[in-house]
Amino acid sequence: MINAIVGQSGGPTAAINASLSGVIRACRESGKIDTLFGSFYGIQGIFDEHFCSLFDVVPDENAHRSLELTPASALGSCRKKLPKPDDEGAETYTKLFEIFDKHEIKYFFYIGGNDSMDTVHKLSVWAKRINSDIRFIGVPKTIDNDLSLTDHTPGFGSAAKYLATSCAEMIRDTEVYTTDAVTIIEIMGRDAGWLTACSALARLTDGTAPDFVYLPEVAFSVDAFISDVKEALKTKHNIVVAVSEGVRDENGVYVGESSQSGKTDAFGHKYLSGTGKTLEEIVRERIGCKVRSVEINILQRCASHLSSKTDIDESVAVGKYAVELALSGKTGSMAAFERVSTKPYVCKCAEADLDKVANAVRSVPLEFITPEKNNVTDECLEWIMPLVQGEVSPEFKNGLPVHFIIKR
Amino acid sequence: MINAIVGQSGGPTAAINASLSGVIRACRESGKIDTLFGSFYGIQGIFDEHFCSLFDVVPDENAHRSLELTPASALGSCRKKLPKPDDEGAETYTKLFEIFDKHEIKYFFYIGGNDSMDTVHKLSVWAKRINSDIRFIGVPKTIDNDLSLTDHTPGFGSAAKYLATSCAEMIRDTEVYTTDAVTIIEIMGRDAGWLTACSALARLTDGTAPDFVYLPEVAFSVDAFISDVKEALKTKHNIVVAVSEGVRDENGVYVGESSQSGKTDAFGHKYLSGTGKTLEEIVRERIGCKVRSVEINILQRCASHLSSKTDIDESVAVGKYAVELALSGKTGSMAAFERVSTKPYVCKCAEADLDKVANAVRSVPLEFITPEKNNVTDECLEWIMPLVQGEVSPEFKNGLPVHFIIKR
Repeated sequence: MINAIVGQSGGPTAAINASLSGVIRACRESGKIDTLFGSFYGIQGIFDEHFCSLFDVVPDENAHRSLELTPASALGSCRKKLPKPDDEGAETYTKLFEIFDKHEIKYFFYIGGNDSMDTVHKLSVWAKRINSDIRFIGVPKTIDNDLSLTDHTPGFGSAAKYLATSCAEMIRDTEVYTTDAVTIIEIMGRDAGWLTACSALARLTDGTAPDFVYLPEVAFSVDAFISDVKEALKTKHNIVVAVSEGVRDENGVYVGESSQSGKTDAFGHKYLSGTGKTLEEIVRERIGCKVRSVEINILQRCASHLSSKTDIDESVAVGKYAVELALSGKTGSMAAFERVSTKPYVCKCAEADLDKVANAVRSVPLEFITPEKNNVTDECLEWIMPLVQGEVSPEFKNGLPVHFIIKR
Repeated sequence: MINAIVGQSGGPTAAINASLSGVIRACRESGKIDTLFGSFYGIQGIFDEHFCSLFDVVPDENAHRSLELTPASALGSCRKKLPKPDDEGAETYTKLFEIFDKHEIKYFFYIGGNDSMDTVHKLSVWAKRINSDIRFIGVPKTIDNDLSLTDHTPGFGSAAKYLATSCAEMIRDTEVYTTDAVTIIEIMGRDAGWLTACSALARLTDGTAPDFVYLPEVAFSVDAFISDVKEALKTKHNIVVAVSEGVRDENGVYVGESSQSGKTDAFGHKYLSGTGKTLEEIVRERIGCKVRSVEINILQRCASHLSSKTDIDESVAVGKYAVELALSGKTGSMAAFERVSTKPYVCKCAEADLDKVANAVRSVPLEFITPEKNNVTDECLEWIMPLVQGEVSPEFKNGLPVHFIIKR
């Protein structure tokens, strides 16, 4: 028996199940895999031997299509961090590889972000150390688009489309009154401003965009921000500002940090929120006009009803490509995207070395940010634009989209 | 010359421009109106004689369709309150009626919520007082569904569809981890819980719903809420709670009030926000598990990309019906909906007397709320369900929905 296993990890996206579908499709089509296990709750499911058989659970084309348009990890997720693959971690890795052997698992696929790629990398290092022939391949996903060694990440395009659409709709909403008003839209992105940049996408088409866009890649100055807004209010009633949750001042202090209790997640990242609220209070105090902040929150990562068709198609393709890599003998790799050209948009799958990927953050290049540090350039938007193209057609029942649920 | 004028007022909805389109369609089709003025920024545009000619601005079927799927008031809005139509207000009304006469306006249509219907009512009272033959007709709109004398309000169905879909997507998002977590979704609705009730719509189809739904129609008890959540956490990791921004305790104190500065809007309504955040802090303190609050904020009223086709079609129809009423000699009326049956859903337009409509709030009936006061009944959801049926097909350009912009 030659079996394979796939898990999902990290935060939800609208496209992570499309990549899962791609892995299932390619494993089945290869004819080389007897059973493809789905590991529930990421790597935790392997410790618990908590699996399903995905060829049974996703039996046909209808099921694949429905899965591809269902948001968040259908197999569940985890934020478990593996120990270093050295003597210290020996017990953990020995246990994992015993379970792989017990279930005749030869291929391991893990769909996730930076931390998940770190997990795949460690497993491949351990496999090398013990001369195991199990192949470990990572499939990227993150709305943040901050993984290195790939042109962009699956899930980003759908979040981008949702954010750009929602910002355009909110701009319509804000411009109905003639009283001076400031609307601050807080967008996810701890270290990378890609998602916040997307707020301005409609600018290329119809000129609709937030007046200012602040990314975490450059130092944020409250004084400059207030001055930007005051100046804009001289010629316009409704000012819309998009701001990344991760903006920080020249000393690296997060704008939203003052209202935080300093808690960190399992990977030591600080929890952030309140950047929009903090700026709202500052505008109220220093400008005194009507002001509102909107935190788009988790909607931006799970709004699969407005997924980008390009993103969903690519996410399926990269899942399939991961299987190709594994079957051709690769291990310790990530299935990635390589952009051949932007106009016309041509993108192909490519192999990336996980040794270089893990935990490196890819930020928005500084040339994509205006010299005033309060907006993104047209070149930035032209780079993002291909990723939001095309609409999906989720199945609706009783007026609501149908989700594909895998019982855990 | 026989001219007409139409304005929009109050907060945005996804369907208010569909009603505007209906008014334009019916005025044009009647052959009885020479010019249909669009008043910019509601009633304020009349004082300023700030008009456009809508037959020119919306010339063809393509323009109509695009307008119908553009969110928020295309003509702009206002929150201007007219004085009482008695001696005290004489100066204001005299000025308004002089402008009507100057532009040979015989028909006035106003699309808005409770406060806007109050404006229409006052104008019709003044007209009667001075024996003017100008007809004043209101066209309802509000996502809140809280207008009396109509089965439901245009705009509510689209907000309902967006909220139900977003809640189902957020439930997918929250259920990926196995750690105990509480997600609190704060939904608009100062006095009426209709929108919050919609969070549970998917329950009728696939069992997906928030675990608890708290409406402002019944007294909210923090102790009962904490007890509900604690009990639910015994059998489930991820608890999702939908709560109306307007919930208040048995003494009428808003849960979100403590964090407010007591500001009120032009109509004396208290600004509310922070209900979700307040409950988040309480859960953190009294239960201690992971907790997050999501304030859906203005997205729920402007997400026209996910409008309900039923809502858009009905909003056009009620705009047309308002013109029919006016042309048949009615005044001081609101074009309303009368539900003939729920299964199958049959709804027709009907006339309502603005004398009875203005400023009466229609709440969720108590029989639609469970005895435990922590959820809505299936009957409630069956009542709402027809209003979210059908999907619209907005035009997309460069991957983003196209909006119809009227230059002001």
